[in-house]
Amino acid sequence: MSLTIKLQLVSHLNINHNNNHANKLIKIKNNTFGNTLNFLPKPTFGNNSLTVTKKSNNKVKRRMQGNFMIKSSLIEPDGGVLVDLMVPENERESKVLEAKSLPNVKLTKVDYEWVHVIGEGWASPLKGFMRENEYLQSLHFNSLRLNDGSFVNMSLPIVLSIDDETKERIGSSSNVGLIGPDGDIVGILRSIEIYKHNKEERIARTWGTTAPGLPYVEEVIAPAGNWLIGGDLEVLKPIKYNDGLDNYRLSPKQLREEFDRRKADAVFAFQLRNPVHNGHALLMNDTRQRLLDMGYKNPILLLHPLGGFTKVDDVPLDVRMEQHSKVLEDGVLDPETTIVSIFPSPMHYAGPTEVQWHAKARINAGANFYIVGRDPAGMGHPTEKRDLYDPDHGKKVLSMAPGLEKLNILPFRVAAYDTKVNKMAFFDPSRAKDFLFISGTKMRSYAKSGENPPDGFMCPSGWKVLVNYYESLQTEEASQQPVLSS
Amino acid sequence: MSLTIKLQLVSHLNINHNNNHANKLIKIKNNTFGNTLNFLPKPTFGNNSLTVTKKSNNKVKRRMQGNFMIKSSLIEPDGGVLVDLMVPENERESKVLEAKSLPNVKLTKVDYEWVHVIGEGWASPLKGFMRENEYLQSLHFNSLRLNDGSFVNMSLPIVLSIDDETKERIGSSSNVGLIGPDGDIVGILRSIEIYKHNKEERIARTWGTTAPGLPYVEEVIAPAGNWLIGGDLEVLKPIKYNDGLDNYRLSPKQLREEFDRRKADAVFAFQLRNPVHNGHALLMNDTRQRLLDMGYKNPILLLHPLGGFTKVDDVPLDVRMEQHSKVLEDGVLDPETTIVSIFPSPMHYAGPTEVQWHAKARINAGANFYIVGRDPAGMGHPTEKRDLYDPDHGKKVLSMAPGLEKLNILPFRVAAYDTKVNKMAFFDPSRAKDFLFISGTKMRSYAKSGENPPDGFMCPSGWKVLVNYYESLQTEEASQQPVLSS
Repeated sequence: MSLTIKLQLVSHLNINHNNNHANKLIKIKNNTFGNTLNFLPKPTFGNNSLTVTKKSNNKVKRRMQGNFMIKSSLIEPDGGVLVDLMVPENERESKVLEAKSLPNVKLTKVDYEWVHVIGEGWASPLKGFMRENEYLQSLHFNSLRLNDGSFVNMSLPIVLSIDDETKERIGSSSNVGLIGPDGDIVGILRSIEIYKHNKEERIARTWGTTAPGLPYVEEVIAPAGNWLIGGDLEVLKPIKYNDGLDNYRLSPKQLREEFDRRKADAVFAFQLRNPVHNGHALLMNDTRQRLLDMGYKNPILLLHPLGGFTKVDDVPLDVRMEQHSKVLEDGVLDPETTIVSIFPSPMHYAGPTEVQWHAKARINAGANFYIVGRDPAGMGHPTEKRDLYDPDHGKKVLSMAPGLEKLNILPFRVAAYDTKVNKMAFFDPSRAKDFLFISGTKMRSYAKSGENPPDGFMCPSGWKVLVNYYESLQTEEASQQPVLSS
Repeated sequence: MSLTIKLQLVSHLNINHNNNHANKLIKIKNNTFGNTLNFLPKPTFGNNSLTVTKKSNNKVKRRMQGNFMIKSSLIEPDGGVLVDLMVPENERESKVLEAKSLPNVKLTKVDYEWVHVIGEGWASPLKGFMRENEYLQSLHFNSLRLNDGSFVNMSLPIVLSIDDETKERIGSSSNVGLIGPDGDIVGILRSIEIYKHNKEERIARTWGTTAPGLPYVEEVIAPAGNWLIGGDLEVLKPIKYNDGLDNYRLSPKQLREEFDRRKADAVFAFQLRNPVHNGHALLMNDTRQRLLDMGYKNPILLLHPLGGFTKVDDVPLDVRMEQHSKVLEDGVLDPETTIVSIFPSPMHYAGPTEVQWHAKARINAGANFYIVGRDPAGMGHPTEKRDLYDPDHGKKVLSMAPGLEKLNILPFRVAAYDTKVNKMAFFDPSRAKDFLFISGTKMRSYAKSGENPPDGFMCPSGWKVLVNYYESLQTEEASQQPVLSS
């Protein structure tokens, strides 16, 4: 599989963009959704105290760089400082030795993804797996109170579970070593706190249901231990997956750096876990146009596929990444104004609760606009024939969530296939019968059966990637059929 | 049944108490619970801008009274103004006529209790049954964001459900009339919004479980309609229950008035739905002493039994009220510094979620201290042999809840029966075996069997009330036994 997206890496620090309007939000009543949304006023340029101009000499550039990369020019990380828990290289060896001397906790693949998420500061200001007071705030309030009394959003409990035997083994130790799925020391958790893992309550409050069949519950929570262990995390080894995609796993710090290098004056994030069809592209391009109309000169799209745990019938990350690259190659999205990167979080499929996490993490990555559509992070109810969540709740909850005030939420109108013009277009309720809704399930069934979707649904090269994937699945399945000897 | 508690009604307005320290909270680390708690600094007296002294003439008194009753001297109602939705008497007749012309919604007994709660401002700043944006904030964030960006606590959805047929009947009307359980017009709901009642999600997010057997779910939510109707409430008729206890149903406004009349400089609320035993009394008296030690001169206890829906095996309100009156008559609590009043809310048994509601409503009633114990608003898990909630979560969640910052949370140590001194005492873990824990269930089983609890557990006259109640229940049950003819 070839991945041909090239990130537009700019080698020099040449920043002269605007951020002075980042905190001057104005409220605009959005009639489509009836919510009050935050939008930036039309920006004024050339008045940015953080600006490093061409006049800066190299010394200044170097001195500024550290700060600049962490303190975004467009939006502040939650808590003011981007968390980075990677231990400096010169301290690692001694800390690995220390970690080996400590009681250890073995991480699952999903735990490892969370170490990645926490370690790079996606969950800033969280500095480790949650202790009970953070866990309870997350569960009950979807937010954490900071020392200054302000709130940051934190809708998903980010926790590490251990079983009775591990708890016993840890005893009264205050620190534990973390062992990655491959057996290597990954980190240390310090000043630990162990508390009960009430799975039923966690599930009910996070998903709003306890029905059997929730993917994250079945695969992650059900087999987990009855205790949670919180503490301060130190990461001792760069998080790599060695799947050929590590180059696309830019940290929040690297993304902020990249936005600055591109002189972005607005960054709009698009979270996805599915292939990009032309309806998605329409709204991303439309959003860019709206931002240009608002006066921004260089809005950059962060196309940000989720790279952690997904349910078994979702299209796998490598296939999606190849599909996304075709979409950019074909010019459906403009590579000059798009950054494709992988968001390392596991997927909960927890609808309105999870969409807050998706948005919050993008604040930390430097995005100041967040696109939200119908039923974000939703899925079908596992036991009833209906959507698990009201499709409008995600954007409503997002627009009201504590701690997300500084992020501009961009709800979008639903796009569907317009049979009158044979392309994806914004749905027009006055001629509803002209529109064809092609769900993810429908799209997968087209690809599985080798049938083509209507012209204009997806760029042909991107579609080909999916067809190949489902063909390879069928070949694999066929080769696994038991041979009957007769 | 005789109710002999006399509220100490003071006929003159003679206020010279202190409130200038109400907003100067200091943080004290409480070692018992490890939470940071809000306490008032030692008050300084004689510096109160709201003070009405004896010098005031009657005109001033009258002019001040309205304001004074609503804007507490000790703690502001949520949203700044105590909500009062009772329509002035001279407008009622015409509004009742209007209500009769509107599509109507028939209220259940519990709906009626909520009309009471909302109408008197216990849920300030809520002005009616929740519309969807309030419902979603309550469900996801346990709080409501006000226009100024601040939060008030709102942990329980306060909603009115209707069925398909009623929704149909309402059609496109913007207002509906509300019919009480006795068939009378009770109020009008204006600018209504009808939205889906996803019961499963509501239950899961409110209780943290969907297990069958939750009393409020079984009796209120399960039989309710599939739609919720929100809107602005107008109450057209004083809410009365005609059970001989209406005099004890003081509104938040009346309670604030009473605290002022008593020149309270601190009000500490004790929520309960059980008979008062000497352990309760110990901690209420201990709290009073702590407040005196902090420098308060006249702390008043609000003994505030819940009067709305309770589960079938709880002791009924009238019995509890009689029991409470005996506790005051016997001097276990001091009638001079105690106000007994009924809190009209229905009970959810939703533990950490509900205790926030219990505390928040008492802010509106003018209490600035709130006592919280083990497992507040908790119960046994309906299908498993364990407490539904971690007994410590209630006080932890309460101490962190958004919108409760101005309320001083007073967690208390567990009291138990000390067999060494034959009385209720604070549990001393160093001699745990000397202590006897007498649960509500255990207490009920004593009373049912006519067996006496250990001496010093409860004042004898109060205990007698319970024994009589359970005897009457048994007589009643016996009289309902089918007679077998053989």
